[in-house]
Amino acid sequence: MAEAGTAYGPADPRETNRLEAFSDGVFAIAITLLVLELIVPKLGEHASAAALRDQLGKEWPSYFSFVTSFATILIMWINHHEMFRLVERVSTLLLFSNGLLLLCVTVVPFPTALVGDYLTTSAAATACAVYAGLFLVTNLAYNFLWWSIRRRGGVLKPDVPPKLVRIISRNYASGFLPYAVAMAVAFWNPYVCIGICFCLWILWGVTGISHEPHLQRPVVQTGT
Amino acid sequence: MAEAGTAYGPADPRETNRLEAFSDGVFAIAITLLVLELIVPKLGEHASAAALRDQLGKEWPSYFSFVTSFATILIMWINHHEMFRLVERVSTLLLFSNGLLLLCVTVVPFPTALVGDYLTTSAAATACAVYAGLFLVTNLAYNFLWWSIRRRGGVLKPDVPPKLVRIISRNYASGFLPYAVAMAVAFWNPYVCIGICFCLWILWGVTGISHEPHLQRPVVQTGT
Amino acid sequence: MAEAGTAYGPADPRETNRLEAFSDGVFAIAITLLVLELIVPKLGEHASAAALRDQLGKEWPSYFSFVTSFATILIMWINHHEMFRLVERVSTLLLFSNGLLLLCVTVVPFPTALVGDYLTTSAAATACAVYAGLFLVTNLAYNFLWWSIRRRGGVLKPDVPPKLVRIISRNYASGFLPYAVAMAVAFWNPYVCIGICFCLWILWGVTGISHEPHLQRPVVQTGT
Amino acid sequence: MAEAGTAYGPADPRETNRLEAFSDGVFAIAITLLVLELIVPKLGEHASAAALRDQLGKEWPSYFSFVTSFATILIMWINHHEMFRLVERVSTLLLFSNGLLLLCVTVVPFPTALVGDYLTTSAAATACAVYAGLFLVTNLAYNFLWWSIRRRGGVLKPDVPPKLVRIISRNYASGFLPYAVAMAVAFWNPYVCIGICFCLWILWGVTGISHEPHLQRPVVQTGT
Repeated sequence: MAEAGTAYGPADPRETNRLEAFSDGVFAIAITLLVLELIVPKLGEHASAAALRDQLGKEWPSYFSFVTSFATILIMWINHHEMFRLVERVSTLLLFSNGLLLLCVTVVPFPTALVGDYLTTSAAATACAVYAGLFLVTNLAYNFLWWSIRRRGGVLKPDVPPKLVRIISRNYASGFLPYAVAMAVAFWNPYVCIGICFCLWILWGVTGISHEPHLQRPVVQTGT
Repeated sequence: MAEAGTAYGPADPRETNRLEAFSDGVFAIAITLLVLELIVPKLGEHASAAALRDQLGKEWPSYFSFVTSFATILIMWINHHEMFRLVERVSTLLLFSNGLLLLCVTVVPFPTALVGDYLTTSAAATACAVYAGLFLVTNLAYNFLWWSIRRRGGVLKPDVPPKLVRIISRNYASGFLPYAVAMAVAFWNPYVCIGICFCLWILWGVTGISHEPHLQRPVVQTGT
Repeated sequence: MAEAGTAYGPADPRETNRLEAFSDGVFAIAITLLVLELIVPKLGEHASAAALRDQLGKEWPSYFSFVTSFATILIMWINHHEMFRLVERVSTLLLFSNGLLLLCVTVVPFPTALVGDYLTTSAAATACAVYAGLFLVTNLAYNFLWWSIRRRGGVLKPDVPPKLVRIISRNYASGFLPYAVAMAVAFWNPYVCIGICFCLWILWGVTGISHEPHLQRPVVQTGT
Repeated sequence: MAEAGTAYGPADPRETNRLEAFSDGVFAIAITLLVLELIVPKLGEHASAAALRDQLGKEWPSYFSFVTSFATILIMWINHHEMFRLVERVSTLLLFSNGLLLLCVTVVPFPTALVGDYLTTSAAATACAVYAGLFLVTNLAYNFLWWSIRRRGGVLKPDVPPKLVRIISRNYASGFLPYAVAMAVAFWNPYVCIGICFCLWILWGVTGISHEPHLQRPVVQTGT
């Protein structure tokens, strides 16, 4: 399958595959566990079509929290997926920086549920600050992961154009300030905090995949 | 493993593999989490062989709901599996349309449990309408996913015969109306609603795999 | 990766790989979810080293049930793994017969917990009959799966020696009677029922892997 | 994909891949299930920004337990990952010794939660002894797994330098005594017990990956 001599060599694709598979497993499980938050209402004797409809309607924050967490983890996965397309091999630092990011992934449901439960109460400030805070840490984890890939002596594929590396670096670095602002703003107006976070998710959804065209063209040109 | 020059090219099999692996993870977890709905009865001091048998017997709706959810997700997986056999590479749109379908997959246990709990009560109309409603949305997600594959400039393998594409398009498109009818019928007779949904599952189980013979023949003939 | 022309052909290894990966996911999740049965005791104010030790000691049936379920699913996985080594490609029937087996796999924790909870009570007969009953159904599922592989026009690799096929058929077929006996015996003596089931697990652990030597020899000889 | 004749041969990479994939699934699920321990506080009517902050603050032992379990399983995965890089093929003994290790992996959250709940109570001695005890068993499982790989007639890749084998053997063997000491020390001072375990985790994090440089050099030199 692999050429003899490269079995443990610096660019063994099996190594990267296994790290990706492990990461995908964590993403897939985290995104699927979210459904455990959806609780079937217990109506007891008072069950009626209208009562069940009303009760399901009242649970909208948990549906909202479910869909939001799902989209969040999906976008994180897409970003992770695109970043790993540029990775040639596995390094020690990559194992740990990737582990830190996975920690953030698995935690997502917790602050999302916190916001779902407390957004309409007077505890909204704390809940939203925790929510923005987690994504501040997640942004740091992405920056750390990307640094562990692109740094001198790192594990970047040699044919990735330097311009693409700079674009990705700038994208991830520019996320830090908005999240810090969102976290601070939570104590003034929680809805603005959540609004900033949502705008940023849309941004990550867009930038996470815009690498593709940049990437493919030079590779096809050079033909390596 | 892959030829140099196609590493990031338009038809990198590793890309499709990773999306399939992530999707399979979500399907596998969703189908396995169902067992958490089976609760061991707590009899306390009154434990006897007969009491336990009676109590287990009373829990039949949860077994029914378990087996139904399992079959539903398995058939969804088979359909997903067959559709991805026709996919050549990954696109941005595919990542998101596939994500929407996975959202539907993870939600399956919720309306199924709702029906399991309320089918024999006066709240059955709401429970069954929600059940049919989810599968209406799931049908839309399948149509969207298939459209994102087959559209002009899409990610369909070039050697898929146009006739097969038309057959699949028609199969998925024709599911919308029956689910809409099932949802409306729920308010008149919940059992008919559930009956329609079950017939449709059997249909998907059959059409999901009938692609295979259509597909294999032309490929073997042309020898590409 | 695959030769052109065999992409959808009758022996596409990617197909089998995806079915194996999905099945492995289900096995891996089912075996890991077992830990949710281990509950940290709540001692409240009465916490002391001795009280905690006593409380942990009292929970031995749940540890026993955990280890037993784990071993059971592991042995089922090994048997599944060995059987799929002989599979050349995926068929419709294989998808469904494999699905039935996976259903049995995910259910394992339920009757095991039932036995863990009720073995020492007067409800032991029912609990043990359900336990043996599940494995009776599991045995049928293995026989069905194996039949769907080996039958005329099935998906067996052409170079599997007929003698090996007969040995495997006999092994799985011979499991039916002991499980039926174990189920009947439960109403007379639950411990004997559990004892029979445990002996059979050891047997499956041994026979599940004894294929290997039989298999390797002829293949190396013929050199195909 | 694989050469004809090696399909069932002694070094079928698909075999090892499937065992790795199954193991990775178990690691990924175990590490993700940890988040179920993080509970959103229920404040009811008394919800306020300060009350939520205080309540979240009080839950620090569960965050601590979450992060610790996560790091523990991540380090166990890295060690497993490195060990399997040296494995050429699958044997019966490997399936079972690997199964035993996976059992230890899935159990990790239980004693960690025990320590999280009882470290600051008078039951700390028991909780910490159980914690160190599990890792004593885990160390035995690693030693058993490694022995099942390296023993005469085992499944070690033939080009692994004997010096590396000796280093790994010594590393795992030397873990037994410290864990036994940690377990005994728990009854005298639980904090020292936990401290020893943490130091050992850092050690495994370091030794688990230090194989890489040792390994790559001889392979590149011999060019096999």
